[in-house]
Amino acid sequence: MTQGTTLAPVQHKPLDDMACSIARTVDLIGEWWTPVILRDLFAGVRRFEDLRRDLGIASNVLTARLERLAEHGVVERRQYQDSPPRAEYVLTEKGRDLYPILATIMAWGDRWLAGDDGPPALLIHKDCGHTTTATVVCSECGAPLTPNRLELTPGPGARPGTGTAVIGRHFKRAPR
Amino acid sequence: MTQGTTLAPVQHKPLDDMACSIARTVDLIGEWWTPVILRDLFAGVRRFEDLRRDLGIASNVLTARLERLAEHGVVERRQYQDSPPRAEYVLTEKGRDLYPILATIMAWGDRWLAGDDGPPALLIHKDCGHTTTATVVCSECGAPLTPNRLELTPGPGARPGTGTAVIGRHFKRAPR
Repeated sequence: MTQGTTLAPVQHKPLDDMACSIARTVDLIGEWWTPVILRDLFAGVRRFEDLRRDLGIASNVLTARLERLAEHGVVERRQYQDSPPRAEYVLTEKGRDLYPILATIMAWGDRWLAGDDGPPALLIHKDCGHTTTATVVCSECGAPLTPNRLELTPGPGARPGTGTAVIGRHFKRAPR
Repeated sequence: MTQGTTLAPVQHKPLDDMACSIARTVDLIGEWWTPVILRDLFAGVRRFEDLRRDLGIASNVLTARLERLAEHGVVERRQYQDSPPRAEYVLTEKGRDLYPILATIMAWGDRWLAGDDGPPALLIHKDCGHTTTATVVCSECGAPLTPNRLELTPGPGARPGTGTAVIGRHFKRAPR
């Protein structure tokens, strides 16, 4: 792809002012590079230098991304060497809980973007010994979740405002 | 949050030159705004003007995001009015298949970012009638997928290069 494109520090309009769990999550982990940094952390690439080298990412961008994740408790910074100072980054419980997101992203890419070559990587599920694909099911009945069998309704944290048209029709109907 | 921050058109370093389904998918649907645009499309907000108004997004950015998704077959543009021309955007099969990603993002945000107010929205699973949370399981044995019970191994589309340290250790071992 294009080589040498610049990666200017950009001020994005924040998404986390929407009362929406998708917007809030994307605001935190949806910055450019962050999902692939998380991927590497899950796969055991933890040291700053190893991450930088693997991803071909500018140091200042990598630092900014990791610091934001640390600030929000997704990763924990651990200095493993004092002189010169060297740090590694370990996923917290909050960070490890992001795994289903990465697994479903991988499954989609394997299905739709791998082309004739096939999937770049396979996941072996140690519990059953098979090559697995992340599958999303209902927490209550275990059936696969499909959008046409789901209804969105306001939760306790709902409030009108930007980005809430998706549940806005319910606001109008609901007694206040 | 911050008001009036600028949203300059940015040249990101592309991620899709990595032989990795996560990087490729993020390259396509990980641009700023795209996940919340997809969220609105899933919830039935399809018209350009409705999307723009709901999200408070600049028209040129919304156009660019939708055009990229159309170009890659994730959405289909349908003109529903000729004069003046007005378009709506409908998810294709490839687009609808993104649902598990959005559902797992929502589940994480509900758990970790909703705070004391609780989730802004609830999903009712029509098949079982319960409020549901997207849960990721193994396609083969149905058990929940956790990262410590998975092993990453090269697939048919694997190749060494940027962003492949995660499976790179296997390359070295594998006979060529």
